[in-house]
Amino acid sequence: MITIEQLITRIEQRQPIINKAEIDAEQLRHEFSSIGSLTTADNKQLSFLADPHYISSLSRSQAGAVLITADYRDQVPETAVALVVASPYLAYASASQIFAQDSELNGIHPSAVIADSAVIGDQVYIGPFCVIGDHVQIGARSSLYAHVVVEANADIGHDCVIKSQVVIGHDSVIGSHVRLHAGVSVGAEGFGFAPTRDPSATGWERIAQLGRVVIGDHVRIGSQTCIDRGAIDDTVIGNHVIIDNLVQIAHNVRIGDGTAIAAQTAIAGSTSIGKRCIIGGAVGITGHIEITDDVTLSGMTMVTKSIKTAGSYSSGTAAMPTANWRRAAVRFRQLGRD
Amino acid sequence: MITIEQLITRIEQRQPIINKAEIDAEQLRHEFSSIGSLTTADNKQLSFLADPHYISSLSRSQAGAVLITADYRDQVPETAVALVVASPYLAYASASQIFAQDSELNGIHPSAVIADSAVIGDQVYIGPFCVIGDHVQIGARSSLYAHVVVEANADIGHDCVIKSQVVIGHDSVIGSHVRLHAGVSVGAEGFGFAPTRDPSATGWERIAQLGRVVIGDHVRIGSQTCIDRGAIDDTVIGNHVIIDNLVQIAHNVRIGDGTAIAAQTAIAGSTSIGKRCIIGGAVGITGHIEITDDVTLSGMTMVTKSIKTAGSYSSGTAAMPTANWRRAAVRFRQLGRD
Amino acid sequence: MITIEQLITRIEQRQPIINKAEIDAEQLRHEFSSIGSLTTADNKQLSFLADPHYISSLSRSQAGAVLITADYRDQVPETAVALVVASPYLAYASASQIFAQDSELNGIHPSAVIADSAVIGDQVYIGPFCVIGDHVQIGARSSLYAHVVVEANADIGHDCVIKSQVVIGHDSVIGSHVRLHAGVSVGAEGFGFAPTRDPSATGWERIAQLGRVVIGDHVRIGSQTCIDRGAIDDTVIGNHVIIDNLVQIAHNVRIGDGTAIAAQTAIAGSTSIGKRCIIGGAVGITGHIEITDDVTLSGMTMVTKSIKTAGSYSSGTAAMPTANWRRAAVRFRQLGRD
Repeated sequence: MITIEQLITRIEQRQPIINKAEIDAEQLRHEFSSIGSLTTADNKQLSFLADPHYISSLSRSQAGAVLITADYRDQVPETAVALVVASPYLAYASASQIFAQDSELNGIHPSAVIADSAVIGDQVYIGPFCVIGDHVQIGARSSLYAHVVVEANADIGHDCVIKSQVVIGHDSVIGSHVRLHAGVSVGAEGFGFAPTRDPSATGWERIAQLGRVVIGDHVRIGSQTCIDRGAIDDTVIGNHVIIDNLVQIAHNVRIGDGTAIAAQTAIAGSTSIGKRCIIGGAVGITGHIEITDDVTLSGMTMVTKSIKTAGSYSSGTAAMPTANWRRAAVRFRQLGRD
Repeated sequence: MITIEQLITRIEQRQPIINKAEIDAEQLRHEFSSIGSLTTADNKQLSFLADPHYISSLSRSQAGAVLITADYRDQVPETAVALVVASPYLAYASASQIFAQDSELNGIHPSAVIADSAVIGDQVYIGPFCVIGDHVQIGARSSLYAHVVVEANADIGHDCVIKSQVVIGHDSVIGSHVRLHAGVSVGAEGFGFAPTRDPSATGWERIAQLGRVVIGDHVRIGSQTCIDRGAIDDTVIGNHVIIDNLVQIAHNVRIGDGTAIAAQTAIAGSTSIGKRCIIGGAVGITGHIEITDDVTLSGMTMVTKSIKTAGSYSSGTAAMPTANWRRAAVRFRQLGRD
Repeated sequence: MITIEQLITRIEQRQPIINKAEIDAEQLRHEFSSIGSLTTADNKQLSFLADPHYISSLSRSQAGAVLITADYRDQVPETAVALVVASPYLAYASASQIFAQDSELNGIHPSAVIADSAVIGDQVYIGPFCVIGDHVQIGARSSLYAHVVVEANADIGHDCVIKSQVVIGHDSVIGSHVRLHAGVSVGAEGFGFAPTRDPSATGWERIAQLGRVVIGDHVRIGSQTCIDRGAIDDTVIGNHVIIDNLVQIAHNVRIGDGTAIAAQTAIAGSTSIGKRCIIGGAVGITGHIEITDDVTLSGMTMVTKSIKTAGSYSSGTAAMPTANWRRAAVRFRQLGRD
């Protein structure tokens, strides 16, 4: 159980509790088991009003405490402690981490295969059947769950969480406080081939990928996402980049600090993405272009040229009844006539 | 070898063989080694006419038996036994399972790492290098192939088939008769972050995902598909849901019973899909919307708003010669002018 | 360190060095540590001019040698050795392979679980925790990295490189000189179901997939890509096919020799793709169609019908400012009215 006092301490790592002075000693001792939405939370649950759309649920909420902006604090029911902050959503994020039951992970499982030349920091956890190659370095307090493969010469920072069945290719550099979810592939060979078209020989000559993947600090990468090594130079992921599941980051892509990328997006080779961009799901970005800082791309946008001005961009057409769509698609096709 | 008698028994679990009384004892003993199409099947193969488009292949077919509707039974050649059913395609599906050579899987491989507190049912198979966490429950006759990781407190029903390198996150609940193909990720942490945008600190505050993934009975999930755990509440997959490869199901998505989802589709967070929907490949569905029951979405449809009426929906434009497409795309862009 | 003489030998496996007679003995002994771009390479690096766009970087390049066409050889600075070839890009590809530091892989790791009936060729490497099923065959000099699972009766040719956590389903046939990157799934069960729609029973009857995956020689398949086994007949990938990451190849697809497929593309069941096609990223191709030889599809193209004429095809609309896009999308919708 977590007290309000503990919650406040965690939340204030990011932002002040504006009404802290008004919370009395008894309220500070109130205990919480988890987090709930305004409509479902009970007295032992913390809730929050992040989006004013849900204001109608506030007055009847049974939550034990509510994270809320100053604008709505008067509407918090008497049974709940109001915790007033500038960003209730950020406060909820901070509080959520206290309730996560991370398993206690200790030591190095005897089944792991670890090269003698690997350098493993203090309090590192290495799970069953991990394979750690020559000259790998793993920083203090990093955890590798079951079946993680780290090839030779990779360098992993401290306080990383690397979930099961991640593969990290040779010479990859991964910062600290990085989270890689199940099945991520970092540092596989990029998709580089030169056509031969010699009828008597192979169709494609493979280009060995001599660059690395270099990932900054506080990066999060979702399940099954692939980040390929560079051809000559490196593929580079900045600090505080967050990437969802099933994303393709091709060789020599560069992603600026703080950019977020949703699931199923594909970024082709040698493209450079700026800082603080928000890239929706299933976006496709062609190769060898540049997208400047602070660009938002809505889901399924197709980007075929560089974007030089910050702002929001979209493409595509939205779902309509199929019979209507057939007519619209035919008329779109007619637009293409000479 | 499988006799017609055995085939009939299996097919009649789903639908009657309409002309069963007319099949004589000699025909019942006819033996089959496999299934073939009308054009390639030989006398030891079963075939079927599911789509009248292929009727022209029927009269010359060498198949030993043909699953067929009453409408076409007169056209079955004399060398083949006609098996008359309402749905030949369903009968083919039923029959196919007899011919699948499932390997015999027994026991628990000595290399598996299984927590003492895990509860393993009767006749469960656990393959090499599986890792089973604390308090995991696995129901009778379920099979876990090589390299399956099941984190603490997960609950897996009976008669499941879990192929190699599946990762099941902690506290996940999986029903019975569920099939998970190679590399599936169930219960990884959802993609939830609150922006901080504090220039001196991290760009994103992680939202610990406190919900679970709950999967019903008779569900099928294809290779590399990701189903993330919920933020507060659970991500829920209904009974009889079938999902193809490389699909993204974000946190707090809910999918109704009997819905089918083809490969590369992405469903963003907190969206709810109804029952008996048919979702094509590479569809993108935005977050926080509802799609009602019995909706069909054709491949690559972009869904940005709730769909409240059953029916078929589509979007996008189809391939045309690139020169024409360039003109059409320019004219589409002009439609966006003030 | 690699000498120019060694580079020439490797490059001439594909194409002649046109000015070889003019390279003197001292130049032949010049040593290289790696490859660099024209702007960053130093005297110990090889560079190339593949695209005339970069001609302005040539005169100031510090590279020790430059691969170049006859047209531009006069502009190579005196400090660099000019190596004149018809295709500098192809020559770069050939040369790159010399610089790749492939780890020396020998023997069979004692942790691997290998069926007694498996037939393992000479100089095969099998890494930690691999699982090799009954009657599997692996040809000479093939390497299986850590955690590779090969199910019963699969047949892998010689000189293959199979990276960590690849799963190869039973009865798959893989040619020689094939490269499968981390996490590939070959031969999982195809997505085949017959609707039952019986309200008292299951929604879908599974169709056991009785075909195989058959992959030719010199094929490359990227991380997390899925190639499903066929329903009755086989799924077939021709020789010299190259496939990027996160691609979906459904059951009974056939892909012709030399075709290239970029990341996130999805090809639905029973579709046939010709030879030497170039398929961009995130393309969607519907099922049961045919695409002829020498077709190019630009990224994100939606293909809903067979393509019978070679050439370049595209679809979709490109990114524009979101405000303009909203208007354009509304007007597209209006095109669909009666």
